[in-house]
Amino acid sequence: RFGTPRQPGLVETATAVISVHPGLKRGLEGVEEFSHLWILYEFNNNTSSMDSSMRNNPNTIFQGVRCLVQIPRVSELKRGIFACRSPHRPNNIGLSLVRLVAVDELNLKVAGLDALDGTPVLDIKPYHALVEALPTAIVPSWVRKSSEFPRVLVLWSTPRQLPPHRNRKKFAWLSNEEILKVIEETLSSGDLRPPYLRESSEQFNGNLEIAGYRISYLMAATNTAEITDISEISPSKDNISI
Amino acid sequence: RFGTPRQPGLVETATAVISVHPGLKRGLEGVEEFSHLWILYEFNNNTSSMDSSMRNNPNTIFQGVRCLVQIPRVSELKRGIFACRSPHRPNNIGLSLVRLVAVDELNLKVAGLDALDGTPVLDIKPYHALVEALPTAIVPSWVRKSSEFPRVLVLWSTPRQLPPHRNRKKFAWLSNEEILKVIEETLSSGDLRPPYLRESSEQFNGNLEIAGYRISYLMAATNTAEITDISEISPSKDNISI
Repeated sequence: RFGTPRQPGLVETATAVISVHPGLKRGLEGVEEFSHLWILYEFNNNTSSMDSSMRNNPNTIFQGVRCLVQIPRVSELKRGIFACRSPHRPNNIGLSLVRLVAVDELNLKVAGLDALDGTPVLDIKPYHALVEALPTAIVPSWVRKSSEFPRVLVLWSTPRQLPPHRNRKKFAWLSNEEILKVIEETLSSGDLRPPYLRESSEQFNGNLEIAGYRISYLMAATNTAEITDISEISPSKDNISI
Repeated sequence: RFGTPRQPGLVETATAVISVHPGLKRGLEGVEEFSHLWILYEFNNNTSSMDSSMRNNPNTIFQGVRCLVQIPRVSELKRGIFACRSPHRPNNIGLSLVRLVAVDELNLKVAGLDALDGTPVLDIKPYHALVEALPTAIVPSWVRKSSEFPRVLVLWSTPRQLPPHRNRKKFAWLSNEEILKVIEETLSSGDLRPPYLRESSEQFNGNLEIAGYRISYLMAATNTAEITDISEISPSKDNISI
């Protein structure tokens, strides 16, 4: 997993690299003239989000897809899947606006992609501000409410440094300092505990996987995450993430 | 064909209706709270755009997809497919921003969709102005040049009215006056002649199919289209369009 920011643009340091098939190299000519691109990708790592109570409700489930979605961080509010950007969709296609950082041969370095490492990219399209920038478009107030959530204070109880990594090549475009920043921004971006623990004061030991490192953290209160350990993920466990 | 505006938003009167599968009805709950939506669809009516000279060029063709694209209305300019919004793409997925006009049961009436009638819709996502409206995003000057083209003066040499239609039900959401406006806006939006005729003064007899009608027009100069006939398309020919 690539830390999975919950929204595009949230963890700005979390640059990702999109590798294009060598046969499509000339297809990249001119992309560097744009500041922003649309990335269409496949939500290929979705686990089923159905629980048994939903499974028998013909009004809410259609071919394994939940039609009504609980809006994150807005209590009791449900909306249809077509009013949401939830990743569990009738067709598993994701759409994110990213900032183009650099083009290097077959690789696009982009900022703000909220996709997992290994996510299949379906298409890259230039952002056309002339028709696609509509600052006055009407958005319901719950969209703002859902995207606002209290920042979390990040503390270190282990030294703030990365252990050596045997497979560092894959994330060579990120410096150690950048990876440390991605870790801190990801943890500070919101309460990462499972929803049923959100408002509790119970201790929670969580793990994140970012750029080949497993980050262990402890949340004892809603607004504090303490980083307790950083270790290299051994390549053998790397089938999904790195 | 639905008149096929060459860009989303160009022919504002050209509303389209997206019909959602009854099993996904609850998925529409809340879409009416948004003014704009993203429509992901499949370019399913693409004809091959390869000519024989390209077919043997390993640098420009990849698995039947042209990597380099001639930019419309900008002479001699070619750019990679990922810098263009051309419909002939490695994955045939279209993306258009539309204005939501109305939701009626399973039907979304939208304005500005540049898709053909019968186009399979893959997904509907709400437009999030907070992150997706970037008016200062950098776009190369040829994008503007490509989308600017001289308006065409539309004249009628046949009465400006629609003949009766036996299959009008399918386009019931458009009044006769609206269909006439779509026809005029489509013809006025630019020179519809094939590229090799664009700068000639040769007479060109063209046909458009809009909302079940075939519109015949005559272009004798670059900036004038004369509507010469409107006839109902008989249902037997209707397999692709209407």
